[in-house]
Formats: sequence, structure tokens, C-alpha cells
Amino acid sequence: MTNNVKIILENLKAGKISVDDALLELKKAPFVDLDFAKIDTQRSLRQGAGEVIYGAGKTAKQIANIAKALLENGEKSVLITRIDKDKASLVSLEIGSFKYYEDAQIGIVGDIKSPDTEGTILIATGGTSDIPVAEEAALTAEFLGNRVARLYDVGVAGLHRLLSHTDEIMSASVIVVIAGMEGALCSVIAGLADCPVIAVPTSVGYGASFDGLAALLSMLNCCSSGVSVVNIDNGFGAAYQASMINHIG
Amino acid sequence: MTNNVKIILENLKAGKISVDDALLELKKAPFVDLDFAKIDTQRSLRQGAGEVIYGAGKTAKQIANIAKALLENGEKSVLITRIDKDKASLVSLEIGSFKYYEDAQIGIVGDIKSPDTEGTILIATGGTSDIPVAEEAALTAEFLGNRVARLYDVGVAGLHRLLSHTDEIMSASVIVVIAGMEGALCSVIAGLADCPVIAVPTSVGYGASFDGLAALLSMLNCCSSGVSVVNIDNGFGAAYQASMINHIG
Amino acid sequence: MTNNVKIILENLKAGKISVDDALLELKKAPFVDLDFAKIDTQRSLRQGAGEVIYGAGKTAKQIANIAKALLENGEKSVLITRIDKDKASLVSLEIGSFKYYEDAQIGIVGDIKSPDTEGTILIATGGTSDIPVAEEAALTAEFLGNRVARLYDVGVAGLHRLLSHTDEIMSASVIVVIAGMEGALCSVIAGLADCPVIAVPTSVGYGASFDGLAALLSMLNCCSSGVSVVNIDNGFGAAYQASMINHIG
Amino acid sequence: MTNNVKIILENLKAGKISVDDALLELKKAPFVDLDFAKIDTQRSLRQGAGEVIYGAGKTAKQIANIAKALLENGEKSVLITRIDKDKASLVSLEIGSFKYYEDAQIGIVGDIKSPDTEGTILIATGGTSDIPVAEEAALTAEFLGNRVARLYDVGVAGLHRLLSHTDEIMSASVIVVIAGMEGALCSVIAGLADCPVIAVPTSVGYGASFDGLAALLSMLNCCSSGVSVVNIDNGFGAAYQASMINHIG
Amino acid sequence: MTNNVKIILENLKAGKISVDDALLELKKAPFVDLDFAKIDTQRSLRQGAGEVIYGAGKTAKQIANIAKALLENGEKSVLITRIDKDKASLVSLEIGSFKYYEDAQIGIVGDIKSPDTEGTILIATGGTSDIPVAEEAALTAEFLGNRVARLYDVGVAGLHRLLSHTDEIMSASVIVVIAGMEGALCSVIAGLADCPVIAVPTSVGYGASFDGLAALLSMLNCCSSGVSVVNIDNGFGAAYQASMINHIG
Amino acid sequence: MTNNVKIILENLKAGKISVDDALLELKKAPFVDLDFAKIDTQRSLRQGAGEVIYGAGKTAKQIANIAKALLENGEKSVLITRIDKDKASLVSLEIGSFKYYEDAQIGIVGDIKSPDTEGTILIATGGTSDIPVAEEAALTAEFLGNRVARLYDVGVAGLHRLLSHTDEIMSASVIVVIAGMEGALCSVIAGLADCPVIAVPTSVGYGASFDGLAALLSMLNCCSSGVSVVNIDNGFGAAYQASMINHIG
Amino acid sequence: MTNNVKIILENLKAGKISVDDALLELKKAPFVDLDFAKIDTQRSLRQGAGEVIYGAGKTAKQIANIAKALLENGEKSVLITRIDKDKASLVSLEIGSFKYYEDAQIGIVGDIKSPDTEGTILIATGGTSDIPVAEEAALTAEFLGNRVARLYDVGVAGLHRLLSHTDEIMSASVIVVIAGMEGALCSVIAGLADCPVIAVPTSVGYGASFDGLAALLSMLNCCSSGVSVVNIDNGFGAAYQASMINHIG
Amino acid sequence: MTNNVKIILENLKAGKISVDDALLELKKAPFVDLDFAKIDTQRSLRQGAGEVIYGAGKTAKQIANIAKALLENGEKSVLITRIDKDKASLVSLEIGSFKYYEDAQIGIVGDIKSPDTEGTILIATGGTSDIPVAEEAALTAEFLGNRVARLYDVGVAGLHRLLSHTDEIMSASVIVVIAGMEGALCSVIAGLADCPVIAVPTSVGYGASFDGLAALLSMLNCCSSGVSVVNIDNGFGAAYQASMINHIG
Repeated sequence: MTNNVKIILENLKAGKISVDDALLELKKAPFVDLDFAKIDTQRSLRQGAGEVIYGAGKTAKQIANIAKALLENGEKSVLITRIDKDKASLVSLEIGSFKYYEDAQIGIVGDIKSPDTEGTILIATGGTSDIPVAEEAALTAEFLGNRVARLYDVGVAGLHRLLSHTDEIMSASVIVVIAGMEGALCSVIAGLADCPVIAVPTSVGYGASFDGLAALLSMLNCCSSGVSVVNIDNGFGAAYQASMINHIG
Repeated sequence: MTNNVKIILENLKAGKISVDDALLELKKAPFVDLDFAKIDTQRSLRQGAGEVIYGAGKTAKQIANIAKALLENGEKSVLITRIDKDKASLVSLEIGSFKYYEDAQIGIVGDIKSPDTEGTILIATGGTSDIPVAEEAALTAEFLGNRVARLYDVGVAGLHRLLSHTDEIMSASVIVVIAGMEGALCSVIAGLADCPVIAVPTSVGYGASFDGLAALLSMLNCCSSGVSVVNIDNGFGAAYQASMINHIG
Repeated sequence: MTNNVKIILENLKAGKISVDDALLELKKAPFVDLDFAKIDTQRSLRQGAGEVIYGAGKTAKQIANIAKALLENGEKSVLITRIDKDKASLVSLEIGSFKYYEDAQIGIVGDIKSPDTEGTILIATGGTSDIPVAEEAALTAEFLGNRVARLYDVGVAGLHRLLSHTDEIMSASVIVVIAGMEGALCSVIAGLADCPVIAVPTSVGYGASFDGLAALLSMLNCCSSGVSVVNIDNGFGAAYQASMINHIG
Repeated sequence: MTNNVKIILENLKAGKISVDDALLELKKAPFVDLDFAKIDTQRSLRQGAGEVIYGAGKTAKQIANIAKALLENGEKSVLITRIDKDKASLVSLEIGSFKYYEDAQIGIVGDIKSPDTEGTILIATGGTSDIPVAEEAALTAEFLGNRVARLYDVGVAGLHRLLSHTDEIMSASVIVVIAGMEGALCSVIAGLADCPVIAVPTSVGYGASFDGLAALLSMLNCCSSGVSVVNIDNGFGAAYQASMINHIG
Repeated sequence: MTNNVKIILENLKAGKISVDDALLELKKAPFVDLDFAKIDTQRSLRQGAGEVIYGAGKTAKQIANIAKALLENGEKSVLITRIDKDKASLVSLEIGSFKYYEDAQIGIVGDIKSPDTEGTILIATGGTSDIPVAEEAALTAEFLGNRVARLYDVGVAGLHRLLSHTDEIMSASVIVVIAGMEGALCSVIAGLADCPVIAVPTSVGYGASFDGLAALLSMLNCCSSGVSVVNIDNGFGAAYQASMINHIG
Repeated sequence: MTNNVKIILENLKAGKISVDDALLELKKAPFVDLDFAKIDTQRSLRQGAGEVIYGAGKTAKQIANIAKALLENGEKSVLITRIDKDKASLVSLEIGSFKYYEDAQIGIVGDIKSPDTEGTILIATGGTSDIPVAEEAALTAEFLGNRVARLYDVGVAGLHRLLSHTDEIMSASVIVVIAGMEGALCSVIAGLADCPVIAVPTSVGYGASFDGLAALLSMLNCCSSGVSVVNIDNGFGAAYQASMINHIG
Repeated sequence: MTNNVKIILENLKAGKISVDDALLELKKAPFVDLDFAKIDTQRSLRQGAGEVIYGAGKTAKQIANIAKALLENGEKSVLITRIDKDKASLVSLEIGSFKYYEDAQIGIVGDIKSPDTEGTILIATGGTSDIPVAEEAALTAEFLGNRVARLYDVGVAGLHRLLSHTDEIMSASVIVVIAGMEGALCSVIAGLADCPVIAVPTSVGYGASFDGLAALLSMLNCCSSGVSVVNIDNGFGAAYQASMINHIG
Repeated sequence: MTNNVKIILENLKAGKISVDDALLELKKAPFVDLDFAKIDTQRSLRQGAGEVIYGAGKTAKQIANIAKALLENGEKSVLITRIDKDKASLVSLEIGSFKYYEDAQIGIVGDIKSPDTEGTILIATGGTSDIPVAEEAALTAEFLGNRVARLYDVGVAGLHRLLSHTDEIMSASVIVVIAGMEGALCSVIAGLADCPVIAVPTSVGYGASFDGLAALLSMLNCCSSGVSVVNIDNGFGAAYQASMINHIG
């Protein structure tokens, strides 16, 4: 990927290539060369962290191969999300420095590097059943170079549990609120905090929770300001945006 | 409605009526006489309070006629719900002691009698837009002989507003929580209270509130115990059940 | 948990602790001490009954450990809901006085104490398939110190089955109506009763029952007064609120 | 419309028409001639009753013209459904023997003929707000030559009102049950009757009735046998099928 | 169940029983005696056919016991619906004259009696995948004493398959149309027929069929007259009503 | 918009511009210059027909100005969709050769040019209420240079109406099927035709048509091959794609 | 199937058959003979390609038998869709020239014939998880005699991947766009192309993708012109229509 | 509101107040004093910007009074959202420095202060109909002290329009993407950007857009990382969170 528009143009000007060849190369060049360049680097999280593989719907073989290719291309670490225990076992047979986190359904190749920002991402859950989603978020945030504080099982039914952690809430840079059922935790925390809150509805619940729909709608209608929402159970997505925000300062 | 099965049977035994007549009377008798008796009295709220007319879908004329008939049959007061201002004006022309409450879309014929129980029904709303539903609940509860405490605009986005009224919440006999948008107030109050909480989702909101669906689902998934839910905007229904509960003691 | 605000303040006044220490302790103290106090006791059902563990999403090990901790902290009995047979077997290996009710998916550690109120909670179901939810409700209500009457399989398709039990319906303090499919039982019983009715839609049915949605909507639109609704299949929630109401008198 | 396949074929055999002409006529002929024949007569209700015009989405002019054309083609009476008062006024200016029924939003040209079957169609409603749909059904059934019994406002909240009419229910040939809100009336009546029951959910209600969806789902899940359902507010459709059934005997 | 109100009353008049005993017996008596009488016989299909057991959610043991009890009480045959192969094997071990129809998931104890009406119920399906629902309907109809004609796989995509059976369609007394996916068969057949059509949406399909919702909505909006609809996959319900209609004549 | 990549490159080679300027121009150039060129022409329908303005949500002033600008830039005709009568009146005051089609809610500036392909687009509707959507489709197709055949009110309830037009169906190049309610017309026509069928569900209907959802789902589940679907009421979109297909030959 | 209406009529005229026999034959004849003729040939894909069997819901035995019958009736190749690996193994035991494509869940009996049109159908997917649906489409298109270009994993998150294939997009005759999650690929490709685009939403995704509903709605609302949509995961249907369009030229 | 916990405690220690008085004051104090303090200031946006009034559901009188009270308490400017033209006229009569922005349905009292951060919030819309929501967002962001760049009508159907603004996209600090219909713009922009993207689905569209549901689901399933979503049409909410993020640096 070393060719870019400037080089093509200079070659053209220098008479090394014809107008038609320049035209052809321009079309094939990655758009990065035309200043649409950061598309790829941005998507691949290449900036200071590692690469991510979405494991769902891929075989252990495919995952291992992609991971190897990334390592060979210079990545120091790779985050694999939505990978179940069986696949993880197979992947670990093929790649040395692989560590599996069953709760989070996450595998990491290589080391999680130390935090490279000052701020802390607070990850709060309504109940213990939300913890798998929370751990997906927490490990993702850590992998991307953030300090993470975990505040689990602080659902609004026992408000004192939540209120006794007001310090953590007030001092976070970004908060990821993870809750199923009625998702009320999101409104309460956002009312207490003065930083951006990213809400993750979870599919925890039964009956009229409709697999997370109740929590999703609840969070979208959050009466507190400063809240936005990601897809049901999308701990990765919330952590990814939280990391972006946390790295702004 | 003084005839009942026992009397019919005694008349039959005494030879005052024939078997066929007894059979006929049994069929016509209100089922109360066969121990299905309180159907009517129960439904008509006759026990100690007044009668209720659901005004929606009835003309002013129909409402006035039903109200008159009730008064002629001994009712001292009549509650008319879901009656708009225009209909109320027309009704007031026909019935003397008629008072209209525009906020609540309620009209009352006769006096609201004094509370006949000790307990208090607390009516709390998330925002000011929920007040019409809240007033429907409050006036209904008062009409049915309850003390009512109003606690409006205590949504969880400003938790301190709510927490500064913990005394009222702790001392209520029943709480009616009325909220639109994400309905989180219900979980928070139920977590603070130790009395039954009846939740009323409202159609207040826009977009993904889907006319109250978000609040409804949220309240049905309430993570606090002791909560049940009525239809969207059904302030009357919540107050009616709250009054039943408040009169148990 | 013996410290409370008053003690902290008295210690401060007496010079036993500094202002900063008082401040710190105040923040850590359960809010009960600041009059937000009953949060915890209320949620934990500590008042006269035992503690409840929601078993779904917890391992047998976790359940056993929580139960043991509760027993060590003085609870005499513990109710475990939504626990399947396999988990129950494992729990029973670790805790002595454990009894499992398979129908209800409930396990109870210790004894169910005798009823401590006069009133009776009537639990009625539309069909035999609703019985698991009904038994969750019945055992919960009994665990919380209530007399329970069971009235199963009285769906409105055979109205005489229901009408022949009018006595039980008329004499109940609270009624929990449990029905799937079209949920019509709720309206009919509420029309016959003069006590609060808590309706539990169940996921029993197929096709356009949409896993309980039909019954849920039906019950929310109940044309009889005095009815409120809990989440689909939430026998525990209905019984919990019914117990609250039954203990008011 | 006297030509049919047999005649065409006989004409062909007799040499009166050519093969090509026969082919052409066969294609143009109403399919009744090819044994798909009754399509038209069946759809147009021509058998013993009159023709029907669905008025919604048609102008008064269009309605009047269709009606006139039908009368000119020998119809003695025409039923116009879903026609509002304004259109009806305009139609009445153009056609003599036009009578308008505002409740039912129905106009009838010509006379409603006397019943031509023995059986009775019972039309029952849950509340007074369902009456417009019920009247659409009742007038349609009468127009199609049926005896109709009306049983309005017998919702299950006051079961005695319904039970006191058991005779009518037991003696009907077909029953059309019309109810909004939770639609429970359908199950109760079907449990009492031993004839086919056609259920019409209505859009009466608010909030979680979702414009008739709650009643529709409830009726589709009816736990009594012998029930089928038509579209929300479709009084005409229910009466049409009821008339078909009532004319079988 | 031979006691009835008249006998009770005559016994009372004759001094054989006291007023209180009469009162007690009246309450216990099947309501049939008070003219609510046919409730039970109607529901139990006792009139000329056999009894039905809904097998879903019952154990093989329960099914066998209910069947035995029915046989001991004089039933000659019993229809068991929604019973899978495993349960059927167990039931067949306990009851002699048991025959299982795997396609229809139906078991029948005793003989299917000969048709007792002249008319024919036509059962038509859109595709071969709808046949299990169709067989549930067909066997139910036969069990209830009807002649049944099967017309399978006549979906509208190949209209000629359907049109070549116009005779069967035109000569049926009642038609049960069973179709998944878009359910268009219902409109086409109803346009060809002049008898009542009962439509059964099936859960056959994928994607936007949403488990039968597409077919259900399609059938409810059927543009042909004379159609009503039952629950998704409810072959039994359609056949039951069809049998009622077919026995009217 | 006369600059393109080739010219830029030639200028660069000829030394007329610097590498940096070339780089800058390349970035600003419409992508057509890099062979992503037809983006614009494709979207603007510039190929042989005129330009389209979507009128909904634009003021008459805005519409007139856009139309004028297009005419000044060489367009010979402009199609304006979703424009109501009031806006059309205002537009006609400002632009001379403006013609309004009220049924279709379409305005056309300039002439509709003669068809430039041989094939015919057949536009069929289920009922007369679908005609506005059909006319939007028909006028759009004509505006885009297609022969259009209209086949209105051929719903499947009267199958003979449809079958008598089999010739038109068999000889069309593309068919646009427009139907509300249950949308069955789509399956039947696609079963008869051997050309692509584009289905347009309409919002015609009431109750469980849910504003076109029933027809939409029905059409998506169409059991005939060769069918695809556009948005509810989107006559324009169907005609646009039909025109694309019709111009392939 | 050589008899047709003309022959029947000529035989009749020639006295070879009676009127009644002619009548009978007419009814049995494929409607092709009455000009409804191509129904069958069109549906069976007989025109230049092979026959299709929808494997879902059929046993291996049934599939094999249908395939054999088709081959015996002269088909050279048969396409079997939605057939899983186990069924495929069984089918391969019974039919010689059977090849199975596991990704696509497709089996083909006989050879895929060479393309018989010039145009190319481009099949594009948003991600790798959409490939099974894409392969169903690709193999179907190839089976029906089309050149197919595959463009997989060009989701809009990495726009440069897509833009670097603009040539393929611009030169396709028809494009099938296959995407789950948010389905945005459809709008982007349709904006770049000037040929018809058929969009296939897939059930790939989780949470608020609601099994493909999000992608379906997104594609139906596509802001680019020239797009139509088929059912979720319906690769076959899209390819079938694409083939129809590709064979027009 | 100058009292805080520390002062209360010091007064207590100093003997100035009793333990009971301290207890009382603690309960009344804003929770900020107990470290839950910033609740109020956070919610009221008091930090460096002005106060916000949500105008929907409030009368002009109420709005004016709240605004006046805020001004009297020291606010320099007040933002009023969701206020229509009529209310705005009335408010302007009562408050001097009031300016109304009709597009955005926003009124501002006082001056919008100059930006107090370096970063820019880019606000992009898919179409011109999304501009009202975009202006609500833009004015809110400006009111809160941000530089705002507007990029309207860059929907993906004309990708070159969007790509020609890659510079603005690459250099923004936060991007608010506002789109109705299929919402694809969100995925495309997020794929190009490397800053947080907040997506606002709008209710623009018709038919299967279901008032913004299609765009909402699409955005929640966005395949690009770094995206979160707010409620339909909630321009204010997006801008509020964007401002929070933009002020972090």
C-alpha cells in the first residue's frame, strides 16, 4: 500500500507513466491516497491499539488465520469478540499468546497495553446477569488503552447501592451503563453524572422484556440529557465509542 | 332488589309460588341472590362512594341522563371521567351541582365526601406533562373517599427532587406512579417504598416512546418488587385499585 | 449495619470522630440512616419473612453461597425462584434444609412459617398449563406468610366451573389471576370480586398468542375495575404485591 | 349472461360459429360457463338479496351511479356500507328510495326484504361504544334476509347482564360477538353457546388497545371452541358470513 | 349429573330437602339446570361425537387417565390433539383401541364414526408444508362426523391447479383454507366459493412471514366476503367451527 | 462540470498545473471523473428523460425554483411527485407549461415524450382505491418513456375479471402490481406472468391492514417467483425500476 | 401435455368427441390452452433452464422422487434449494449426477449449463456472514443461465473496498445486494449503479436487527431509485427475478 | 442553597445546632452537599452555558415565567426547544431579548455566547427534510458554546456529494448524523470519520419508515464502529451529548 496519489502524479509529471496508466492506477489506489485515506486505519483501530475480529459467524480456523495475518503484518495484539469456549480452545491450539475470557466471550492475542489516557471509563450494570455484556465492554476498553472502573449490580431497585458510589460516577470521563429489564439505571446515572453516558440495553429479562426491546426503548426515551444508546448487548460498540471520547482530552 | 334465592325458596316451600314460578324467578334474579350477588354493587362502586360514568364515546345528553337516573336512584354523587370541556358545558346546563376539572377531564356531580380511611394514596409523576393523568387519578381517589398526596415532577433525571420527599414515599399506604418516556420513576420509587406501587405509563413523549409503549414495557419489567401496571394513561384504573387497597385496613 | 446517622452525629458531637470522618461515614452508611433507610429492608423482604434469591442466570454454587450467607446473617428461611431441577440438586448437596418444588421451579431453605394475616390470597388459573406460574405465585405467597387458596383450571370457556366457586372469589382479600391465551379470566373474575385483582399473563398458547403478548394486552385493557397487571409469567411479582396488600389489614 | 360453455360448444358443433370464434367467446365468457361460473353471482350477493357497495374511498357521485346501474339491471335493493352523513345527503338527492342509518354508516336503497330463514343471528356487544360496528352488522344481516336479535352492552365486567340473556344465546343460529378493549366477551359467549360464533374486534379503547390489536389477538386466542374472527371493526364481514351460515339450514 | 334445578325444587317442595340444602345444591349444580345448562355439553362436544383432549402441556400419563375416565363415563371415542410421537407411544401402552396419526399429531381412541351429515367440508392447502395443520383439521372434522374432501397443494402461484378443482370448491358446504407465507389462497377460494370459508394461517415460511403473522394479517384483510379466520396453525379450531356449520342443515 | 480526471492529468503532464494543484482538483472533482462518474446522471434520470422533484416537504416556491433551474440547465421536462393541489396551483402561476394530475398528485413541466422502447409496462390494481398510487406509477413510467397499460380493479375476489385479461398479463414486459388489504393480487399475477413483477403494497384498508403492513408482508412472502417489492404506496419507485427493466431490451 | 383448446375444439367440430367430453377436457386442460397457458411453464422455469425444488419441509425421499420424476419427464437438470447436508447425503445415494454446495444449501442434479445471455448479474454482500444467502443467489443465477460476478464483504463501513469495484458495479446488468444489520449497502450501490438493484435483507445480526427486520425496513426505505426488495434471506427469489431481467435483452 | 453537609456538621460540632436539627437539615439539603451534589447543576446546564426549557406541553405563559425566573436567578441566556410559532409570539411579548428560529422550533433568550472550545461539531443530514431536526441540533450546540459546521443533504444516494466533503468529516471533533428513511448515511460517515458519531433517526419518510422506526433500527445496527443513537427526531439530545464530548478536550 505504498503507492499514493502524489507518487502517481509525480510519476506522470516525470513522464514515467502515461495519462491512461495514471488514470488506471488512480482508480485502483486505496482512497487513502486521495485523502479518503483514513477509512481503513480508522476502521481497523490501528491508531495506537490493536485490531479487532468479530468472531460470530466465523470458524476457529478463519479466526486463527485472520489473527495470524494481522500479527504478521505488524499488529502487536488482536481482540476477538463473540468467540465461544469451543472456538477459543481451537484458536489457542494455533496461536501462542492467546488468552480467553469466558464471561466476556472475548479472546485476546498478545498483551493488553497500559492505559494511554488519564480519564476513566466507568462501566455500570443493573444486575449480575448483565455482567457478560459489561465484561465485553470492559475488556474492549482496556484493550483500547483505557482505565476502566467496574460498578456492577447497582440497579435502581436498591438505590443506596448506587448512591454510595457517587464519587466514581462524578469522576468518570465516560460512563457505559448496561442494563436489561426496564433500563432505568441509565436515567438515574445520567442524572447524577456530568459526562457522556453510553447506554447498552441487554437482552436480560423475560416476558415483556422482549429480548431487550423494553430496555432499548426505555433508554432511547431517557429523560436525562447526555445519553446515547447502542444496539442490544453491544458492549463492544459502547466501549469503542467510549474509548474514542476518552482519548479526546 | 330485595328478593333473593332464600326468599324464593321459602315462598316455594310455603306453597306461595309454584315450582315453575320459582324457576322463572331464579333465572331473573340478580345473581347476588345465588351468591353471585355482589356483581352489581361491586361494579357500581355503590359501597360507600358514588357511581362512575366513563364519558368517552357518550354524548353530553347520554351522560346527563345516566347521571340523573343515578341521582334519582339514590346516589349522592357521580364521577364522570374522560369528558371534554364542550360536553361538560352541556352537562352543566342540565344538572345543578356539577363541577368540572379541565386538567383531569373529570366532572363530578354532588360533593366529594370526606376521606373515610386513614391511609394516604401518594400520586407521583415524572414530569409536568403527566399531570392530566395524575389529576384523573387524584380526583378519582378523592371521590372514592381517600386522602391523596400529590408529588408532581419528580422524574429521576433530578434524583434529589425525589429523594427530598422520601418521607411522603415511606409513609404512603399505596403509591400511584405516573410517568411517560422511559418510566424509570416506577423502579426508583418502588425501591424506596414498602407499600404497593401501581404504575401508570403515559403517552407523553415522542419518537421511540411509541405513544406510551416504551413506558409500558419499562414498567412491566420493573426490577423492584411490589409493582403492578395498568393501561397507558389509565389514571382512573390505578386510583380505583389504589382505593380498594387503601380501604382494606 | 448497626451504625446509623444519629449515632454518627452523636459521635461527632461527642468529639469521638472528626467532621471529615463523619462526612465519610455518612456517605457509606445505608440510606436508611438518613431516612432513606428502608430501601434495603423493604427490598430484601426482611420484614417478618425470609430473603429471596432470583435463581435465573446464577450458578448453583452462587445460589448456595448467597443462601448460606443469608442464613449466617440470621435469616431463618430463603426463597429461591426460577431454579431448575439440576441446579436444585446441586444446591441440595450443599444446604441441609432445602426443599425443591419442581412445578414452581422454586426451592426453599428452611421452613415456610405459618400465615401471619387473616386474609386469603386466591390464586386462579385459566388452564392446567398455567399451573407452574400459579405455583410460583402460591409458594411465594405462602413463604411471605399468607393463606393461599388455589383455584386452578377455571377458564371462561366453561363458565360454570368458575361460577361454582363464587364464594371463594367473594371472600378473598386479594386475587391473583393467571391466564394465557386470551386472558379473559381476568375480566370475569374482576367483575365478580370486590377486592384487588392482580393479573399475570402467561406465555401459554401458540401462534397469535405471541408468547404471552395477547394475554398481556388483553389484561391491560381489562374492562373490569380493580385490576392491575405484572410481567408475563411473573408469578413471583404478583404474589409479592398481593402479600403486601394482604398484610395491610 | 345467458351464454355458457355448453351453448358455445353446441353452436360450434352445429357449425353456427367457427373454432376461432368459439375460442374467443370462451375467453370472454364469465367463468361460470367453464364451471368457475358462480364467481360473480356469489360475490355480488345476487342470490335472493341485493347488491353491496363499499362506500369508503368512493365519491357520492360514484356511489349514486353504481347504485343506479344496479337498479337498472334489476336489483331491488342496494346496501351501501361505510358511507358518512355528507355523502349520504348527496346520494339521497339523486336516488329516491334511499334511507340512511347514521349509527351504522349504512345507506339502503329500496326495501329490506323480510327474513327468508328461520334462524336468528344474535349480535352482542361488550359496550355501548361498539354499537356502530354492531349496527353495521345488524343492518347487513337484515338486508341479507335474516332475523336479527340485538344484545348490546353485555360486557363480562357485569356478568349477570350477560347471564340473564342465556336464552337468547342458547337459541341463536349464529352469534356475532363485537367487542373492543380486551375482547373477553367472545370467550364467555362461545362457552355458553353451541352455535358458530363470529368475533369482531373493535378499535374501541385507548392506550394498549392499540386500535383494536388487543381485542384481535385476544379473540384469535379464544379458549372456547367454535369461534372465528374477522378484521377489526368489520361488522359487514361478520354479518355476511353469519348470513351464509344462517341460510344453510 | 342427573340432578337439575327442577328436581331440586320439587324435592324442596315435597319436603325431602331443607331450604339450606336446596340452596347448597343449587350452587353446586351445573348451570345447565338454571338454563346456563349446555355449557358443559357444548364444550365437551358431547353431542353426537366424542370428547377432545388438548395434548400439549399434558403428560402421557395425564392424557391416558383423562381418556380412561371419559371412556368409563360412556364416551365411545376420544380425540387427542397436539400429541407427539413419544407421548403417543406411552398412551398406546395404556389404552387398547388407540390409533396415532403422526402427520396430524393426533391420536384417536375408539372408532371414528360414520359421517352424520350430507355436506362436505373441503380442506384446501397452499403447499405441502401446510399438510400437518390440514390433517389436524381433516381428522378433527371426520371425528366430529363430517365428510371431508382434501385438496392439498393448490397455492395460487399455479392457479390452474386450483381452477381445475372448481367443482369441489363449488359443491362444498364449508371450506377450510390453510396457507402460510402470504395466505393469498384464502381470497382466491373465497372468491370462487359461495359457502363459508374458514381460514387458517400457518407458521410455514421464513423471514418476513414472522411465524405466520404475514398470513394471519393477509387473511384478516381478505378482500372476498364470507371469510373468517382462526389462530395460526389452529387446524382443530377451524374444523370444529366447520363441523358446527356443516351440522346446521 | 466540464473538468474531469483525464483533463487534470493532461494539464499536469503538460506542466499547466502543479502536482499539488492536481491533487486538490482531483479531490474536488465529481467522482464521474474517476469513473465513479455516472452517479449523478443516474440519480438525476438524465438519460433520455427528464428530472424528478420529490415534492413532499418542499414549499411551492422551492419546487418552482428547482424546476426553473432544471429548465434553464437544459432539461426539457420535469416530473414533480407528491405535490398536492394547493402547491400545484402556486407552481402553475410561476411556470408556464405545467400540467397537474390530481389523482396521482403529480405535476409535469413540459411534454411527456413519446415511448422510446417497444415493451409495455402493465400496471394492475386490486381495487379502485389503489388508483392514486397506480397513477403515480403510470405517469412516472410514461414520463420516463414507456408504453403503459392500465388494468385497474382486478382484485382476486372476482378472479374472472383478472383472468379475462390474461393476454395483457402475458404480453407485458414488466408488471407493476398495486394492492392494499391482503395483497393477494401479486401472487396470482406473478403466477400467470413470465416477466418481472414489482409489487407495491398500498395503505388502503382498515383495522388489521395496519396502514399497508399486511399487504407489505403478504407481498414479501409471495409464493410465486419473479416478484420483488417496494415501499408502501411507492408508485414512483416501482415505475422507476420498471422503466429501467423495460429499457434493457 | 400436447392437447390444447384449439385441438379439443377441432376434434369436437370434426365429431371426434362429444360436447360433454369436450367440456370435460376443457376443464382438465392446462389453462395454457385457454390462453392462461404459460402458468405452468413459467412457474416451472422450463424456458431454457431446469426445474426447481424447494427442499425445506420435504424429506430426502420426497426430494429424490420429485427429482427423478422431473428427469424422467425430460428435465436435464434440477435445482434443489434449502437442502441441508444430511438430506443431501441421502439424495446423493439415490441420484447419480448430484452435486451439493454446502454454503448455499443447494443441490444440483445434472450440469449447470453455460450462460445464455451477455449480461452479468453482480452479487454483492455487506459482510462475510451474508455469503450463504449470496451463494444461494449466485448458484441459482448460474443454474438459470446467467454470468455471475461475486463481490463479497464490501460493506459501507469500509467504503474504499466498495468504491474500488465501481467498474463491476457500473457494468452489471442487474445487481443483487445482500446485507444484514443496517442494510445500507443497498442505498450506496444503487446510488452508484444505473441498472436495477434487487435487495436481499439477511437475518445476520443480533439485538435490534430483529432477525432481519432492521435490514428489511432499511432497504424498503432506500433513498436511491431503482431498488426493490425480496424476503429476508431469499437469495433464490432475488436471483430468479434478476435472471428474468437479465434475459430480457 | 448555600448550606452544605460540611457546614451542617461543623455547626453541629460547634454546638450551634442539635443532633435532631442536623438530621433534619441533612435530609433537606440538596444532595450535592452529601457529594450527590452536582445533580442539579449538571442537569440545568449551569456550567458555562445557559438553562434549557423543553417547550412541548407547556403554555406560553409557563414558558415565559420559567424563563423570567431563570433570568432573575442569574442566567444570562435561556434555550427553549420545541416551541411553535404561536407560543413564540406570545413569549416574545413578555420577554425582551427573545429570538425565534422557526425551522428549529427553538427560541433563545439572551445572546448565544461565543464558542469556548476549539473543536467543531459537524451536523450532517441525509436530505433537506431532515433540516428542522438538524437546526434544533445546530442551535443547541451553538447555544452550549460549540463551533458548528452544517453539511446538509448529503444522502448516500449521491455519494459524490458526501465524498467531496471528506475534509470536514475527517476534521470534526464530533459528528451528529441526522437521517430519516433508511438511515444509511450514519454507517457511511462513521466509516469515513475517526471521531464519535451520534446518530439521530428522523421521522421523515412514509410507509415502511413507520415514523422513524426504520431509520432507528438501521442506525442501531450500524456496521461501523464509533456510533451511538438517540431518540427519533431528538436533535437536542444529540447536540447536548456532542457538546459534552466537544468540551472534554
